[in-house]
Amino acid sequence: MSGSKVVEPIYPYAEWDIIETSFNVNYNARNETIFALGNGYIGWRGTFEEGLPKGYGVEGTYLNGFYESQPIHYPEAAYAFAKNSQTMLNVTNGKVIKLFIEDEPFNMLEGTLLDYKRTLKLREGLLERELTWRSPEGREIKLITRRLICFTNKHLAAIWYQVTPLTFSGKIKIVSELDGDVTNLTAEDDPRLGSGLKGHALIIDHHAANHTGGQLRQHTGTTGFELVCAMENDLQTTNPYTSAASTSAFTSVITFEIDAAQGQPIQLTKYLAYAASNDTGQSGLALAITANHLATQAKETGFARLAQAQADFLAEFWADTDIVIKGDIALQQGIRFNMFHLLQSAGRDGKTNMSAKGLTGEGYEGHYFWDTEVYVIPFFLYNNPQITRKLIEYRYSILDKARDRAREMAHPKGALFPWRTINGEECSAYFPAGTAQYHINADVALAVKRYVMATEDNEFLVNYGAEILFETARLWASLGAYIPRKGNKFCINEVTGPDEYSALVNNNCYTNLMAKENLEYAHRIALWMQQQHADAYHALVAKIGLEASELDAWKKAADNMYVPYDADLQLYMQDDSFLDRVPWDFANTPKENYPLLIHYHPLVIYRHQVCKQADLVLALFLLGDKFTLDEKRRNYDFYEKVTTHDSSLSSCIFSIVASEIGYHDKAYAYFMNTARMDLDDYHGNVKDGVHIANMAGTWMCLVNGFAGMHAYEDVLSLKPYLPQGWDEYSFKVNFRGRLIGVTVNQSGASYQLLKGEPLTIQHYGQQVQLGVVNQITVMPIAP
Amino acid sequence: MSGSKVVEPIYPYAEWDIIETSFNVNYNARNETIFALGNGYIGWRGTFEEGLPKGYGVEGTYLNGFYESQPIHYPEAAYAFAKNSQTMLNVTNGKVIKLFIEDEPFNMLEGTLLDYKRTLKLREGLLERELTWRSPEGREIKLITRRLICFTNKHLAAIWYQVTPLTFSGKIKIVSELDGDVTNLTAEDDPRLGSGLKGHALIIDHHAANHTGGQLRQHTGTTGFELVCAMENDLQTTNPYTSAASTSAFTSVITFEIDAAQGQPIQLTKYLAYAASNDTGQSGLALAITANHLATQAKETGFARLAQAQADFLAEFWADTDIVIKGDIALQQGIRFNMFHLLQSAGRDGKTNMSAKGLTGEGYEGHYFWDTEVYVIPFFLYNNPQITRKLIEYRYSILDKARDRAREMAHPKGALFPWRTINGEECSAYFPAGTAQYHINADVALAVKRYVMATEDNEFLVNYGAEILFETARLWASLGAYIPRKGNKFCINEVTGPDEYSALVNNNCYTNLMAKENLEYAHRIALWMQQQHADAYHALVAKIGLEASELDAWKKAADNMYVPYDADLQLYMQDDSFLDRVPWDFANTPKENYPLLIHYHPLVIYRHQVCKQADLVLALFLLGDKFTLDEKRRNYDFYEKVTTHDSSLSSCIFSIVASEIGYHDKAYAYFMNTARMDLDDYHGNVKDGVHIANMAGTWMCLVNGFAGMHAYEDVLSLKPYLPQGWDEYSFKVNFRGRLIGVTVNQSGASYQLLKGEPLTIQHYGQQVQLGVVNQITVMPIAP
Repeated sequence: MSGSKVVEPIYPYAEWDIIETSFNVNYNARNETIFALGNGYIGWRGTFEEGLPKGYGVEGTYLNGFYESQPIHYPEAAYAFAKNSQTMLNVTNGKVIKLFIEDEPFNMLEGTLLDYKRTLKLREGLLERELTWRSPEGREIKLITRRLICFTNKHLAAIWYQVTPLTFSGKIKIVSELDGDVTNLTAEDDPRLGSGLKGHALIIDHHAANHTGGQLRQHTGTTGFELVCAMENDLQTTNPYTSAASTSAFTSVITFEIDAAQGQPIQLTKYLAYAASNDTGQSGLALAITANHLATQAKETGFARLAQAQADFLAEFWADTDIVIKGDIALQQGIRFNMFHLLQSAGRDGKTNMSAKGLTGEGYEGHYFWDTEVYVIPFFLYNNPQITRKLIEYRYSILDKARDRAREMAHPKGALFPWRTINGEECSAYFPAGTAQYHINADVALAVKRYVMATEDNEFLVNYGAEILFETARLWASLGAYIPRKGNKFCINEVTGPDEYSALVNNNCYTNLMAKENLEYAHRIALWMQQQHADAYHALVAKIGLEASELDAWKKAADNMYVPYDADLQLYMQDDSFLDRVPWDFANTPKENYPLLIHYHPLVIYRHQVCKQADLVLALFLLGDKFTLDEKRRNYDFYEKVTTHDSSLSSCIFSIVASEIGYHDKAYAYFMNTARMDLDDYHGNVKDGVHIANMAGTWMCLVNGFAGMHAYEDVLSLKPYLPQGWDEYSFKVNFRGRLIGVTVNQSGASYQLLKGEPLTIQHYGQQVQLGVVNQITVMPIAP
Repeated sequence: MSGSKVVEPIYPYAEWDIIETSFNVNYNARNETIFALGNGYIGWRGTFEEGLPKGYGVEGTYLNGFYESQPIHYPEAAYAFAKNSQTMLNVTNGKVIKLFIEDEPFNMLEGTLLDYKRTLKLREGLLERELTWRSPEGREIKLITRRLICFTNKHLAAIWYQVTPLTFSGKIKIVSELDGDVTNLTAEDDPRLGSGLKGHALIIDHHAANHTGGQLRQHTGTTGFELVCAMENDLQTTNPYTSAASTSAFTSVITFEIDAAQGQPIQLTKYLAYAASNDTGQSGLALAITANHLATQAKETGFARLAQAQADFLAEFWADTDIVIKGDIALQQGIRFNMFHLLQSAGRDGKTNMSAKGLTGEGYEGHYFWDTEVYVIPFFLYNNPQITRKLIEYRYSILDKARDRAREMAHPKGALFPWRTINGEECSAYFPAGTAQYHINADVALAVKRYVMATEDNEFLVNYGAEILFETARLWASLGAYIPRKGNKFCINEVTGPDEYSALVNNNCYTNLMAKENLEYAHRIALWMQQQHADAYHALVAKIGLEASELDAWKKAADNMYVPYDADLQLYMQDDSFLDRVPWDFANTPKENYPLLIHYHPLVIYRHQVCKQADLVLALFLLGDKFTLDEKRRNYDFYEKVTTHDSSLSSCIFSIVASEIGYHDKAYAYFMNTARMDLDDYHGNVKDGVHIANMAGTWMCLVNGFAGMHAYEDVLSLKPYLPQGWDEYSFKVNFRGRLIGVTVNQSGASYQLLKGEPLTIQHYGQQVQLGVVNQITVMPIAP
């Protein structure tokens, strides 16, 4: 079979599950990430209900968009440096269920685990643990726990906890807690981590507990957000028991003491609700009532019905989204795991977005980057357009802050989106690889274009998208200039492109091409609105003070955009001076010196011809209709040699372009790297959270790469091939209200219109009519 | 007369004194800088003996090279960022003498000042205050204080304090203290200030006091330096008195109570010694004994003899150094004030250097920059070559640390001097305007060359200079590379030149030209040593592992150095892309937006064609023999238009080059700006310390500018002219053991050999023989 099975996998291959078959505390931090649950709002790391001593992992509970902020201190500050940090808070741990058997605490680090299995169930949206444990004093129990975070109600989570005394009858104590004694990680030596937030960021205002429920009310010191975490507990046992409530400085606790009988299972179901003021708009008692009400309602609903709703939701998700790979179970597992985590991490309320590590860890402090627009949105776009819209609505929600930032950066008009943020304000504390990445503006604009192209959602375009397009276009018009020595072309100086191993360059090719796309599309949409939505257009013009001359300026800048190109080498230059740098001495760089960024001063890296990640190659993909195949091949060949892929955002892009230019082996190798990057912990840092962009990249590798799918302008086109060693792969595409099934195997590519109106697509440039629902059209593929 | 008298001066014009004629507490912080005393080791801000409430100024006492260090915290750190701060400490205040008249404390903010005068005496090296004060209760006293910091013993300072009761007889109490309750300023919002050092950096180990003397022993927490400050007090009175000693947590105090008689003066003389472990090499009791001994000896010497030694020292200094300007007392005063502060601030022990603010304030944390080599050394070079040698010896003393830094910056050979430092380690916390300024290496190398050229001190060259030259040359050889797309020329990428309004550029013209000079001179000296000092050469080769091929590599790099030049515009380009930037919109920049650096984000500044200070124009001066006059004029014209002079290092360079190209009005205007920059507080920040580089620049404006003096290679050449409105100016030059007097007036330029062997100099290209001591040769000057 394929090369994916050479290395013994960390988790055994399985179609729909991620399974851990033995407990090894040394891998605990990594497993906490792998087994994390989330619903786009709440995120839980895969910690154990009974907990582990500090140092083994991070008891992480995160709420999308719930952050604390503090002034950033620079040893040498300058004007308009980002002012305040934003850190996604580790909030109240509601997972805690402690177990005592005749006063022996259950603890997997002591006693004997007779059997153990943990399973992340991708179809059910459940995390399950089953184990048999013998206590130090020789008592044996069976424990089964199941937990879920509801996809259908973003405030809710639940844990089903069953303990059975196998070898004894006697006293069993189950302690269910809300634990507010939580802090964020602090790490100053790794630029990829590093929250400066020390101590307890959440201040506890009130705790309450009664015989089944409890509550912690808290607030943040600086952002002033309020949070209420409420629990309800439901004990099911045929034996006598007592329950008692208590509180401490940081906790709210319910203790059940059961006279347990050998062989008789005891079940505790715990329902948890998180309600935050910045999300609900409520505060004080109203917020507390909301949280209690949510927890109580969940208890009334019961775990079985919550689990059923979860499974129904996921069935629908997979029905539209699943990718089936026949002939490679390792990749099949990897790609499903990745899609599952993408679903778990995406904010879908229009106020939150997708952090670089999802809701699975504290890496990058929970910040939103361009990862969303360039990596994540393509995935959702063709599966869940409604989530895509919500992700773009988030950008619209921070447009005023982006306008403010543009003014601060000396642009009289337009908006400048922040490089990294939660609340919309820039919080990148190293501007050469932060604010200088102006391309974020064009990335957002391209997401708008792609969304509109794939959905024809003109309502969104007119009411939200156009404003984003116009304000980003304005920024480019102000940022760039016509430079006489560059043939009076429109140049954009002093920016950093996607590749962070170059910084503060002139005419980053990716940036200029993307800006051109932004300007052109903004211009096109302005003219279209004048014709088709004149009232809305005039209202928008009035709102943002748009002048007619600006439209001409956008068109002129786009038409005259400078594109750095070396005619002798027939290469696009990553920037004006990329080819003037000395190639990095890869031959004499020891393996342990990668990633370069933690072994060389930025000056050393910036001085050399070396890329952390796809930059020009990313343009070859995103703007694929602007390059010939020859150009793509030539530039790929050049840039591949100088790229370290030190960024997890790199491999998938190289895979996609390799597919297109016929480098199928390379495409496969890069895909391998992406599909199981986190499951196999290639970068050794899964403990800090999953690599969300790469996870979405997996989907792109397959759909945009292997299947060659593109929709640059109106038409959906595919050029599928079958990777060696595979029997078949299939996926579905949502496009303009249609659902299209695509299956690729030795016989060819089969296209099936599953839902919606007839549509003409392209297959290797040939028109294919999908006229009848469920009819399959098979087209030959290249050998 | 000249334009210098248009504005009412802050201090009345006087040939040899800086005088304050009335006390206004609002100007106190500025005056503390202006009236600061120093001897290159100890620096005292011009505070009053009785002190003022906090907030009115800074009770600054500084010791050159005495610093505390702490880890630098970066919000986003990266590899090899400077690790630890270094802050010149504000140390024990020994100036304190409090006065009580029948328990009424003397305090100039209360009661009535009947007369007041403070004088900084540039010929005597004394600060004097004379006043008559009526207390709130109506008692009148006359107070005279004189203080000095000994030029002849770097550890010593003394205060002569005389109070006379004018209208009463009664109890007078004089309290003489050592006050250890001192802290450094902290300012996070101005990149030019900003020590993060909070609280008491000096920990007090021991205090002692007896009836006349006292002592504070202290140490720093991190650097572990010990400091002992000792005092001896000598009370002279014809009236009965008692004395008592006491100590508190932070102080050592001697209190004298005198039964004063109307009209009878009472004198207290206070002798202060500062001894530090990092300077003397002593610690513990030995250090304490040294300090006590120094103070006791000073007391035995007495104030009169200390003052006489001070005056003698200064007489000698002025004899060789003074510049006389006839016809412009304002400039005369300014230039003398500047030279006096240069003398006060220069470390002359080979272990310390010259901070950017001297020893007068806490701006830039007391760090040493390139200011020393490029601005200060030329001043001392032609007046006090022995101080010059000591300043360069400091660089030699940190060569090992510069080697370490080079390794850290991925250079296998060579040394990289720190951009800012006290102890030799880099402590620039913003590398784009710090470590990226590699030109520091060439600046140091040029200082070596100039020193050797002006002194023929081959002993220094062979034993110290050559090693500096070779190690800096090696760094360039490793930093640069032959770039095919640049005609295989030797290019130096990713550096920042002197102009900090551009950063991280390729081929900064100044840097490349200076590197070329560095490489060429290192190569030349290597060949010379092979011939003339073969043993020393081979010893050095063995010590630093120098290979013969390296010498060839230096020569080749120098010969093939890339120099950015625009043939169409006939302009040297500040860097590869300087002309590709948009000119700054000066017309629409309000006056209050200068300096730009505190009103615009670095990205905005870097993107534009705008200079903070001379960069290419500095090369036109330093490497003046490499450019034609036409080139100088053309480039000056271009760069002047885009320069804001937001740096105090700019005006003097523009003045010098303006002189050379015949722009005499401009030369004069820029000179005006430099000569009285601090006396007239042009930049509004004299309170933070004097602008040392600019002070030295004043001397260069006159000698290198107006008198057109240069000594590029062996020959001293002059092209003097007389600025309009001046009657005459004269100065002296030390050159290769000769002392030469130069006087320029309407009759021409007079040259006089005052000391030493005959010498041939050049006057407007014409050879002038100075064959006989004291003979005057008059040469015509251009009208």
